[in-house]
Amino acid sequence: MAATVSAISGGVTTPRGFRAAGVSAGIKANGGLDLALLVCDGPAQAAAVFTTNLALAAPVVVSREHLARSGGIARAVIVNSGCANACTGDEGMQAARDMAAETARLVHCPAEQVLVASTGVIGVALPIDRIRGGLPVAFGALGADQGAMAARAIMTTDPFPKEAAAQVVIDGRDVTIGGMAKGSGMIEPMLATMLGFVTTDAAVPKTLLDRALREAAGDTFNAITVDGECSTNDCVMLLANGASGVVVDEMRYATFAAGLTAVCRELALGIVRGGEGATKLVTVIVAGAASSGEARKAAKAIANSLLVKTAIHGGDPNWGRLIAVAGRAGVAFELSRAAVMIGSTVLFENGRPYDEASPLAAEYLKGKDLTVSVDLGAGGASSTVWTCDLSAEYVRINADYRT
Amino acid sequence: MAATVSAISGGVTTPRGFRAAGVSAGIKANGGLDLALLVCDGPAQAAAVFTTNLALAAPVVVSREHLARSGGIARAVIVNSGCANACTGDEGMQAARDMAAETARLVHCPAEQVLVASTGVIGVALPIDRIRGGLPVAFGALGADQGAMAARAIMTTDPFPKEAAAQVVIDGRDVTIGGMAKGSGMIEPMLATMLGFVTTDAAVPKTLLDRALREAAGDTFNAITVDGECSTNDCVMLLANGASGVVVDEMRYATFAAGLTAVCRELALGIVRGGEGATKLVTVIVAGAASSGEARKAAKAIANSLLVKTAIHGGDPNWGRLIAVAGRAGVAFELSRAAVMIGSTVLFENGRPYDEASPLAAEYLKGKDLTVSVDLGAGGASSTVWTCDLSAEYVRINADYRT
Repeated sequence: MAATVSAISGGVTTPRGFRAAGVSAGIKANGGLDLALLVCDGPAQAAAVFTTNLALAAPVVVSREHLARSGGIARAVIVNSGCANACTGDEGMQAARDMAAETARLVHCPAEQVLVASTGVIGVALPIDRIRGGLPVAFGALGADQGAMAARAIMTTDPFPKEAAAQVVIDGRDVTIGGMAKGSGMIEPMLATMLGFVTTDAAVPKTLLDRALREAAGDTFNAITVDGECSTNDCVMLLANGASGVVVDEMRYATFAAGLTAVCRELALGIVRGGEGATKLVTVIVAGAASSGEARKAAKAIANSLLVKTAIHGGDPNWGRLIAVAGRAGVAFELSRAAVMIGSTVLFENGRPYDEASPLAAEYLKGKDLTVSVDLGAGGASSTVWTCDLSAEYVRINADYRT
Repeated sequence: MAATVSAISGGVTTPRGFRAAGVSAGIKANGGLDLALLVCDGPAQAAAVFTTNLALAAPVVVSREHLARSGGIARAVIVNSGCANACTGDEGMQAARDMAAETARLVHCPAEQVLVASTGVIGVALPIDRIRGGLPVAFGALGADQGAMAARAIMTTDPFPKEAAAQVVIDGRDVTIGGMAKGSGMIEPMLATMLGFVTTDAAVPKTLLDRALREAAGDTFNAITVDGECSTNDCVMLLANGASGVVVDEMRYATFAAGLTAVCRELALGIVRGGEGATKLVTVIVAGAASSGEARKAAKAIANSLLVKTAIHGGDPNWGRLIAVAGRAGVAFELSRAAVMIGSTVLFENGRPYDEASPLAAEYLKGKDLTVSVDLGAGGASSTVWTCDLSAEYVRINADYRT
């Protein structure tokens, strides 16, 4: 992809024809923003990828149904934070449907053109009356300059909101892509992980839009991990309204996909940077794998290893832990041909350590944006994933989440 | 197995005909005990299970070779802590061979009748001169009452030594089984996990001894996890010297196996209790699985989940995390038929939460020895694994291990 992508500041309302709002509906006990509404001025083509968790939350079930019934046409997305509406039985399903129906009534569209998402504690009944009360407020607050408020309203333990936007030029015209996302624990692959909402003013036919989201998510949202968990609620939704007048076809696909991937990557890296208790962003590169699948598998194993994550937190260039995880990752691995680099410093190669380089690596690890690389010595495939370090703060956050 | 197993106090030198020693050879910088020697008065039949990690440490390679060459006959086991002798190339292999040869010289047996194990930091050269210096001291200290010293000498970050012993009666005669083990991070399944040494004065033919160790380890050492890691060095070794005069055959196998499993279970639970930063022992029971393999897989996923382990650490009856992990464990799962119990309190069943029971479960979680149970609602198979909670102390230990 040689397409030129221009990163711009912005979020879901940066593409033409989208308005958003973020308000407090009283779902969070602390009175924080907890209801986000995203509305498209006209019908948009929509694509979504959902969690692979089998304990599907009600909003995931409802959004999938709605996409299927509407043929992938959406007018609005309604999202609450503070309550996941997962494991809430028939009442939870009804609450998710009511949330969509009430939004549809305000927006004047069929209920199946509304997508729903929730995030927060599992197993607690959704306070649907508060959402009913908050929805007209959100509708009244809708604005093309309110994307940042919406990005704040979808946060749970996130330390900061995640927004990104980019432009690409197709047929001499600007196409804008914007998005917002929230983390920040339960972040892992299988697109089973977090909430992401991306908008674009390109017109993209259903099959190409589905493909673009699947491919972009695979190299971004599905290539990050905070704690290896996969939530009951995660989804990434993409709405394309065509307001730019640009129609994306096979020939123009690569340019659009490059812009979409850039926005998804920035959102995904924001999720990792804002991982619970995270103090460092770590890029894990695995090379020398027998296949790209094995490369990804080993990279994920390293990125999820408590021993690796704590060593990086402590600034310890403990390359032995990287080798040990590679060796148990369930992929082809040849110790005598393996290698480990921390930053650009080789610490293990040709079957022997280079401990004299350890102080250099330790100095490097004081940074905040780090790369570790492992060569499995077993082939020519590679993969990159992103993770964060593991701090005592992660334990504190997750031991005390509900108390 | 209806065999009566009597737990007794003791360790590796409790069975007749075994002597041990634990001394300081100067491998650990702090001068602590770091060299353990276990010697059998005559040749013993030996069995061992080794790590599944592909980055095999030198002592693992050497011990496997020796067992193969000697036909499974062993006279002595030499173990050092403070250095794993892993990822140390040809020099590390030579050091492991030298360690065995020097032990063989003192014990007056062929080198292949000596098994070797190491534990500690990966990628640091084994200080073989210090081991050479310490070996005669250890040999001089050998005693039938020195099992406890040996158990201390194999420790790294373990907060306490792990010993166990049991007796069974076969043909009217006492058969004694004793053991020692060390943890305490990098503890996971696939018998890829820790060091364990078990002795018995029964005579057990090779095939039965191999089977007994494999089966006992499967339900004990392979059913525990601290952090999901699998080290480069882990092994469990079992020596049977026949000093009791009892010969174990197929008919007497179940009784012997019951005693062996009891000793292995106590050692394995000791490893979990002494897990890095652990404050609670957690028994994870998964029922309602489609197969026993799926039950084990789901139980391991729950036992390794950071979100579950931190919730238990915080005393939070957050059953939603148990359901969420079961749903993403890659096994058959039916939310509407699933259930979660914390202790004996049902918190989720028939698709709905029982939050009124939450205070009862929270009270229960203040204890130190806890059970959580998840029914997957997908079949009739079950599995039990043991884990510990995850504390900020784990992070501190592993962030600062080498610094």
